[in-house]
Parts: sequence; C-alpha cells; structure tokens
Amino acid sequence: MSITRRDMLTGVAGAVALGTAAGAQAPADPTKVRGAASRALGQRAAPEKVQRIVRSGAASSTPHQDLMGIITPSDLHFERHHGGVPAVAPEQYSLLIHGMVERPLVFTLADLKRFPSHSQIYFLECSGNLGRTAGPETTPGQLAGLTSTSEWTGVRLATLLREAGVKPGATWLLAEGMDAAVLTRSVPIEKALDDALVAYGQNGEALRPEQGYPARLFLPGWEGNASVKWLRRIEVSDRPFMTREETSKYTEPFANGTSRMFSFRMDARSLITSPAFPRTIDRGWNEIRGLAWTGAGKIRRVDVSTDGGRTWHAAELQEPVLSLAHTRFRYQWQWKGEEAVIMSRAVDETGYVQPTRAELLKLRGPGTTGYHLNPITGWLVRGDGTVVYREEAWA
Amino acid sequence: MSITRRDMLTGVAGAVALGTAAGAQAPADPTKVRGAASRALGQRAAPEKVQRIVRSGAASSTPHQDLMGIITPSDLHFERHHGGVPAVAPEQYSLLIHGMVERPLVFTLADLKRFPSHSQIYFLECSGNLGRTAGPETTPGQLAGLTSTSEWTGVRLATLLREAGVKPGATWLLAEGMDAAVLTRSVPIEKALDDALVAYGQNGEALRPEQGYPARLFLPGWEGNASVKWLRRIEVSDRPFMTREETSKYTEPFANGTSRMFSFRMDARSLITSPAFPRTIDRGWNEIRGLAWTGAGKIRRVDVSTDGGRTWHAAELQEPVLSLAHTRFRYQWQWKGEEAVIMSRAVDETGYVQPTRAELLKLRGPGTTGYHLNPITGWLVRGDGTVVYREEAWA
Repeated sequence: MSITRRDMLTGVAGAVALGTAAGAQAPADPTKVRGAASRALGQRAAPEKVQRIVRSGAASSTPHQDLMGIITPSDLHFERHHGGVPAVAPEQYSLLIHGMVERPLVFTLADLKRFPSHSQIYFLECSGNLGRTAGPETTPGQLAGLTSTSEWTGVRLATLLREAGVKPGATWLLAEGMDAAVLTRSVPIEKALDDALVAYGQNGEALRPEQGYPARLFLPGWEGNASVKWLRRIEVSDRPFMTREETSKYTEPFANGTSRMFSFRMDARSLITSPAFPRTIDRGWNEIRGLAWTGAGKIRRVDVSTDGGRTWHAAELQEPVLSLAHTRFRYQWQWKGEEAVIMSRAVDETGYVQPTRAELLKLRGPGTTGYHLNPITGWLVRGDGTVVYREEAWA
Repeated sequence: MSITRRDMLTGVAGAVALGTAAGAQAPADPTKVRGAASRALGQRAAPEKVQRIVRSGAASSTPHQDLMGIITPSDLHFERHHGGVPAVAPEQYSLLIHGMVERPLVFTLADLKRFPSHSQIYFLECSGNLGRTAGPETTPGQLAGLTSTSEWTGVRLATLLREAGVKPGATWLLAEGMDAAVLTRSVPIEKALDDALVAYGQNGEALRPEQGYPARLFLPGWEGNASVKWLRRIEVSDRPFMTREETSKYTEPFANGTSRMFSFRMDARSLITSPAFPRTIDRGWNEIRGLAWTGAGKIRRVDVSTDGGRTWHAAELQEPVLSLAHTRFRYQWQWKGEEAVIMSRAVDETGYVQPTRAELLKLRGPGTTGYHLNPITGWLVRGDGTVVYREEAWA
C-alpha cells in the first residue's frame, strides 16, 4: 500500500475508473452525478447479496461468514418451524392464561404492550444447531447458523402470571403456538417467573413473521424450540405435559444409561466465522474472528488454537460482553504459509469449558442424538490460503 | 381481562374468527393451514407499515414512535446527505491518506477489512435534529428523528494513521467524501487518534448506501455531518481547513458575542417516544417510554415530569446503559384523566443537565441557529386521552 505521489494521484483516478465493473448502478465518478433521493425504507447496496441459507422449507440459517458484530439483522435471523410460518393478524391475536391460576385471563396484543416492557439483547439457538456438513465446503452458517442475536422486547411472563395469580403447587406450564403444528412445550414455572418474556419486539420493531409475529414466548439461553412462537395459550399445572415434541425429539440418552428429557439450557459454544470456507487468506497478519455464547450467562474467555488444539491463546473479547448474547472474539494471527487447523474454545462464567468432539461423544455415548451438540470445531487453512471445514462426521 | 370459563372458550374462538379483517393473508384459523416455507431473506409482517419520515430528498427520519429498544433497524436509520446517495462499487472504493504523514497510503476496501476490527453500539445524530413542527400533530420522529443507534464495525482510524505515520506538529485532518457534494470536514487529530472509526459495517452487515457504503468516517458522539460518508480522502495538516460546511452552516453565535465554530459534540438529550402523537391513552397505568443519549459518554439519569416540569421523578434506565448509545428509559404513570404535560430531562455522566428551551435560548442569544438544539420537549395529554406535541416555536 506504500505509494509515491504520482502513484497516489493516478491510483485514485484509476480506482474511480474501475467503477463500472462492479455494480450496474455505479457511475465512473460518483462525485459528478447527483445521488439518489432519500426514501422511506432503505435497501442494501446493490453489490451486497447477503442472505440466509435455506436448509429446507422448515429452516434457514444465519450466514455468519458474512456478518460482523453481535446483532443479527432481523431478516437474516435463523428460522425454524414445524408447520410453516402462519400469517397472524394483530387483531386476531390473543393469549390465554389458564389452568392453576386464580383468574383465567385473555390478553390482546394491545394489552400485552401496555404492561411494563423489557428489552434485552439475547442470543437464540436451535438445539439442533450442528449442521450435517457437505464436506470441506461447509460455511460457518451451514455448520452453526441456527443461532442469532437480537434485541428482544416484551413483557415479562412473570408480570402476566402475577395478574392471573398462580396457585400454590404449580410447577410447570404448557406453552402452545397457533401455527399449523400447534407446537406445545412444557416449561418449569421457575423459568417463567425468572427472565421469560412474552416478546412482541425484535431489533426495535415488531417481530418478524418467522419469529412468532405478533408475540412469542422467549426463554433466554434455552433451546429455541421451547420459546414457542405465535404463542396463544399458557396452561399452568403441577406436572410437565409430556408433549409430542418432548417425547419424540428433544430427549437425549447419555452414556451412563440415563437420559436427559428437559435439556433446556444451551451450553457454551464458539464458532470461528473468519477465516473460514469460502475465504482465501494472504500471508501475514490475519484477524481470526468469531462468536461465542452460553446459556449459562456470560462468556468468560475464548481460547484460539492455530495448531489444531496443541496450544491455546486467549482471544480478545469485544466489549460489552453481555449475558446470554453472542460475544465477539478476535485473535491476531500471523500466517506464514503453513498448513494449519484453527479452532476456538469457549469458557463461560460458570467455568464450563466447550468440549472436544471426543469428550462430548464419551459423555453422550452411542445413542448420541443430533441435539445439544456443542463440540469444538475447526477450519483447515491450506498452504495456498484456501480455507475449508475440518470435516468431522456426527452421523 | 378477567373472564369466566365460558367467556374464555368463546373468547378464544371469537378472536380467531376475527382474522380476515386485519391482513388479507391471515387465515381465520392459522392452525388449520400450513404456513409459509422458509426463505432467504425475511420480510416484515404484512400489517406492519413502519417506515422513515421523508423530510426532503436530502433527509429522512427514524420513526421513534413506532420503535422499541435501542437498536434502529438499518433500513430505518435516519439519513441526511448534501448531494444525494451515490452508488459506489466496492471495487471502485479506495481511501487515500496523505498530507503530513511519513508514507502516503491508499487502502482498498479489502485492505481496511484486513486490519484489526472494532464493533460498538453508538448513536449518531444530525446537528440539525430539532424538526420544525407542524403544530400539535408532530410525532417523535418528526420532532427528533435525526438520531438512530446501530452497532458499527470498522477499523480504528488510529490504526491507519499509524501505518501512514503522522508527522510531528499535525493537529487536524480533512475528511472528504466521494458523493456529489464532495463533503469535506475538519477533524482534530485527537479525535482521530481516540475512538474514530473508518466503518464498513452496520448492525452486522455492510453499511447501507445512505450510510456511506462501502466505508465512512465515524466519530462517536459527534455531530453526524462530521462523520463523512463515502470517505475517499484524509489529509493530515497543522490547521483546520475551514471548509464550506464549516463556515456556512455549522457555526453558532452565542449570546455573549462569541461564536462556536467546531461544536462537534452532541449534548445530552432525551425524547419521550410514547405516549406521544398520534397515540391515545386510556386511564390507569401507562408506561412512559423514551430515549436519552449524550455525546459525553453515558446517561446517568433521566427525570420524567407529568405536571409540566413542576416535579420530576427518576425514570428506570434499561440495562445495559452503553456509552455514546441511545439509552431506553421508562416510567410508570397512573393517569386519572387530567390534562397533563409529560416531559423528560437527561442528565449525563459529566453532570450536564438537558436545558429547558428558555435556558438554551438565554445561552445562545438572538442569533440562535437551528443546530445543536437539545431543549426539554413535552407532550400534552388531553382529557380525552389524545396526545399532541406541546408546540414551541424555534424559528
């Protein structure tokens, strides 16, 4: 980048002359053409093609390889649904709270918005967030794009339950969605009275349809499936409801013969988002960038290895490190052209250390399901600077 | 909202039957119809019509009356430009740093992205952010919508200046945009070496075109105009450049006969976003919600008055209270049907108190311009629950 004054002048002029190649709209010299007028809704720049990775009709992933910071734009937040995304009119919406309560209540959307509100930046993660890889050509979004971070706004579920008056002896509640799957999940009353929200806002505005518009349950730090979207009913009870989702899917056998049925909390995990497939890097200083998160609170530390896990170095954490939100980490790495496996390992405030694949398989045993898998993953940097996923099967 | 079991059952069924009125797409019973498949880019729910307020071809405002939390979605971030929004292709982009430096340098966009990156949630505010009101029917966005908050990502300008090697005696730099206005502003070298960014990211993705795509200067806490967009050139010097914008516009005379030429920092301010025009409220508990911000660091306190400024009460601040970012405040107010003027007053960590209109006019004198006005503003709640702007002229 060091230049002479002559280079400098021709360089600037030269750069301007390149304009036409990149975007049809870009004039050769933008200073000579009056630009576009202001408008009611902004749009992305024409050359930017960022979008979610559609995995099926029922899921799409956040393209973490293309993103920076911790906030996921709402139209790039991952989605997962079991009956498609319903269209729900706000006037049509109501939330019933009944069961073991003093006063069964129905809340309209306007009712919910009138209560004291709470906003917080939280991650959300699908418990099945370890993508089946397509081999080395797997991107961070394909590998672990079923997690995103938004600022969520809503009313505390505790506030609504206080209005209804929870009866003594109540220990669980059922949350039910108004989608075609009529998704139901059991939630312990402790979580409901702690930090659970009935959320109607995401990143400053109304929820997106695929996030449960107009209102959803939001259980910070817990598996996404339990944060029932298009929430229409909460039934308070003295036992879990053993719903179809709980018995058919979200139960994990362990190596010691037990099984974990209500494994709500998402354990600590990290993901290097750059360099990663499909990037190619140059020799010299490269910033290894990634995300870490934990359902247990705050990330305490992220370690990075550039030698396949033999040695580890603490990465820099980007402030503010928020509880139950994605945390950015960065590590400056001087790459000299050697083949290298780069990996990251999250440690959370409880001292929990993100496990290796081997440690996780040992704990979970031969019946390991596809849920709640948070192994350390890595990227292989080849001598030519290309980067691919260091493939490991989880079949 | 208290109901019998019979009401409960018919109420839920009745609510579902209402569906068709609100959005053409909403089926009467969403549980009976398979919903939409996942897609690459999300869209807002059909009933949601949130958009910016287009003030002219050169400006649009954030509709704060419709928003929650602190993050402004990128397509609703305010915009202000003096020559329209240029279309700049990423390949076309370069940034020249020259003048009093050891090594003049040109950086491509890829060069900028390779340096250590920094992300932070910051507000941005136009120094002309006190809208000329259209009378009582003025919304929060019309009144003060030229401020928004995003998570910005970029390289610290200090890093680039270190590469170029600033010569002893340098005190100012010129920042120049590649838009049709070729906007130029002088920036003290202290700010450049402190927290200034050359930003290429906003809310996780590339800057939006109207925010300076592909790269802009970002001066946290300072008037928006100085954060030159579509940044193409930085010239380091030992004096300010006295550019057209600085001499024709952004200079403010004071009552004591002096004038303030480089009034970069935005002083503390607050804005009640709800209740406000065009909302109508009901008797009973209402949450007064708003935003506060200061270019001096963190908001320490926001006071709310519901009696036109006679008595003040501390509002609750939503955590995290971030330096140089919008801060949400809330205050629970029991409205009994009386006519009331509600107001908010920000106090920042330096002890600075947002002034009344009278205090501000006294300080600034008869030549008061339209820039850097941060008076306490209020909303009149009428006996029928309608809310209007408590009009005050600033002509």
